[in-house]
Amino acid sequence: MNTRRDKTEPLGVPDFAGAMDGASANQPGAGDAGVVGTLDRWVATKLWEFAGRPKVEIQLWDGETAVGERYGTGVTRLRLADRGALWTLFVDPDLNFGDLYSSGRADVEGDGGLVAFLESVYLAAESGRDSIVNRLSGRVLRGRPRSNSLTGSRDNIHHHYDIGNDFYTLWLDDAAMQYTCAYFPDPSMTLEQAQVAKLHHVCRKLQLQPGESVVEAGCGWGGLARFMAKHYGVKVRAYNISQEQVAYARERAQAEGLAGQVEYVLDDYRNVSGQFDAFVSVGMLEHVGPDHYRELGGVIDACLQPLGRGLIHSIGRNRPGMMNAWIEKRIFPGAHPPALSEMVNIFEPWNFSILDVENLRLHYAKTLEHWLQRFEQQVDVVRQRYDEAFVRAWRLYLAGSIAAFEAGSLQLFQVVFTRTHNNMLPWSRAHLYQ
Amino acid sequence: MNTRRDKTEPLGVPDFAGAMDGASANQPGAGDAGVVGTLDRWVATKLWEFAGRPKVEIQLWDGETAVGERYGTGVTRLRLADRGALWTLFVDPDLNFGDLYSSGRADVEGDGGLVAFLESVYLAAESGRDSIVNRLSGRVLRGRPRSNSLTGSRDNIHHHYDIGNDFYTLWLDDAAMQYTCAYFPDPSMTLEQAQVAKLHHVCRKLQLQPGESVVEAGCGWGGLARFMAKHYGVKVRAYNISQEQVAYARERAQAEGLAGQVEYVLDDYRNVSGQFDAFVSVGMLEHVGPDHYRELGGVIDACLQPLGRGLIHSIGRNRPGMMNAWIEKRIFPGAHPPALSEMVNIFEPWNFSILDVENLRLHYAKTLEHWLQRFEQQVDVVRQRYDEAFVRAWRLYLAGSIAAFEAGSLQLFQVVFTRTHNNMLPWSRAHLYQ
Repeated sequence: MNTRRDKTEPLGVPDFAGAMDGASANQPGAGDAGVVGTLDRWVATKLWEFAGRPKVEIQLWDGETAVGERYGTGVTRLRLADRGALWTLFVDPDLNFGDLYSSGRADVEGDGGLVAFLESVYLAAESGRDSIVNRLSGRVLRGRPRSNSLTGSRDNIHHHYDIGNDFYTLWLDDAAMQYTCAYFPDPSMTLEQAQVAKLHHVCRKLQLQPGESVVEAGCGWGGLARFMAKHYGVKVRAYNISQEQVAYARERAQAEGLAGQVEYVLDDYRNVSGQFDAFVSVGMLEHVGPDHYRELGGVIDACLQPLGRGLIHSIGRNRPGMMNAWIEKRIFPGAHPPALSEMVNIFEPWNFSILDVENLRLHYAKTLEHWLQRFEQQVDVVRQRYDEAFVRAWRLYLAGSIAAFEAGSLQLFQVVFTRTHNNMLPWSRAHLYQ
Repeated sequence: MNTRRDKTEPLGVPDFAGAMDGASANQPGAGDAGVVGTLDRWVATKLWEFAGRPKVEIQLWDGETAVGERYGTGVTRLRLADRGALWTLFVDPDLNFGDLYSSGRADVEGDGGLVAFLESVYLAAESGRDSIVNRLSGRVLRGRPRSNSLTGSRDNIHHHYDIGNDFYTLWLDDAAMQYTCAYFPDPSMTLEQAQVAKLHHVCRKLQLQPGESVVEAGCGWGGLARFMAKHYGVKVRAYNISQEQVAYARERAQAEGLAGQVEYVLDDYRNVSGQFDAFVSVGMLEHVGPDHYRELGGVIDACLQPLGRGLIHSIGRNRPGMMNAWIEKRIFPGAHPPALSEMVNIFEPWNFSILDVENLRLHYAKTLEHWLQRFEQQVDVVRQRYDEAFVRAWRLYLAGSIAAFEAGSLQLFQVVFTRTHNNMLPWSRAHLYQ
């Protein structure tokens, strides 16, 4: 069974409704909501057991048959609308739950809703880490993410980031349009405050001095680049392969009078040229792919001054594993959150010295809670502009990400590094907390 | 040529003078201080070139012939006393320099003395990282460190730590007898202040609360265990396989009225039993050996409470490589400073979540400077108690370690970790800096 999207399929706004229809046509028992039989009950039980017995009840389409934990306090309910949904889920839950949820054939109820349901599932999966099922389904049989060659990267990035700047404007922060983990030294901060705190945290870790030069790999809508120029007096050359983002970033820099200090380059990080006092990359590594980490380190080695500092900020994992299959298929083609054992391949071949690693896992859960809340506040606008399947897919993606960070399935690493000969190091990290 | 010490050789106080004699008897040209010939000059030149052309002059035994850089400002001089010294050094400089220096057949002069000389050598070696010579000599042909099986570890630790508590008392800090990297948030601190600052830094990173229980693996003379009990109100069970150290530790705990709170166990870390709120290990990992990292993680997994925190403090490297061969042979049998790519094997198989990595490289250089200074102040006592070869060997070891940390050949990592499900995490690291 190969449910992967063909790479020649036109990209752009993901057609979630179309994907659902296409998937269901190939599935046995789609729309079959007949009498629940012994075999159905057996399959549902095995599905629950293979998932590591999460605190979840699975209710079948007759509205009566239920397996797993009993629905109630601390236990959410998964409702499956037909036999096809059950079998499809059984075959590949990681991959197929997303499509079934988006189309409405799978739904969730109970305290804490979708986030609580998904967190139970992630926690059960993390506990059953050494089960055969887990190893087979998640680690071995699962294929590689899509290629991140120069053209592959362009397609993959276009798929996600060129949905339309207007869509992201609906629910990201107003301060700097940051689509990466914020920093909440005080968890009661607003999203805007926490994104500004993140930008300062990154700049302090890099010890930026006025007049220095910075290269940024993967600059999103350019918020960090403009922030560094404005608040730390540095010159920035920022790379991105998303046309829509670069167009937006240039416009904003012009409007803010920063065009002389910030240059946005529509090109791949592998084509970085020049020499810089600092290298920074926030939220790009997830799209680079572990096969290219050594190469990324070589790019940094070629562009960093002898006393230069670097920072890489990325979603990660406690140990190597793949991105959730559905997210990799529908939301982030080519994405891979690395374990530290993979990330070190950026640094070790080039003798870079790792100075500081900070794990901001719970900060990303909180960031995503803000995003989901804002998304729900704008949900009518989103539904009108796209459709219900798009709304449900994004809701699932945001809620699922909250659950993954809460459950410890995903981490957020900020890694600070320098060349091994650089002895101009601060004597403590106190300067980050003044 | 196998110059490794046989494992059946009696251990205890290292017999540096004896080792010198033994080595020189097997060497061609030992004591041969005849006329310097063309071949001698060629060998000296190749030695200097293979070393990566350090800022060093090599002067031969006639007091006239010199190769390499010209001795003067910024260039130190290595004097070789005879033909055997030159050839022995040429065959395996990493391994043999130490013995030649200890016996006085190699000596160093110039600004900055031994530290400056060794730093030039380390810097040249780090720059020539991809040279064939470096790869062959340092990485491939060099054997593995000695076995750290249960009995192997006991022998190896006995070799170094049971020289005599009195010897270490001569030049370690009075505050807590710490034979590990201190922490100098202010570089003008005294050694005593910096060791106390290190102990607080470790305790804060572990977020110790009164009444909690801590297990320590490799406790040295027990200073950290007593400090945690006294200042943070925790109960500590501390493991060490050095008899002399454990005897000292128990005596001190008794004298300080802490015997009820601190239990010192003369046993291997692999035999840790019980459940604890925190796991800590400062300066033991260097002796564990990478083949045992996964096993160490299993020990931690078995003894850490669900919300427990852990900290491992260890000398490390930017990328995998061996400890200097002479230090591994004469000073620290079985020692191996890991790269982060090796250290993660403690954590990843057990799904531990790495929260914080701090690199304190320059703090170890400064710690060693204090130690060397105190050692030199007590050098007459040391010489009387041991002999001149012992003095020169320890001087070389301390000076060489300063140079290695200054040049970036060695790093010092503090890694904080927890179980992946632990969401009781501080929202920032500001509490370390209050």
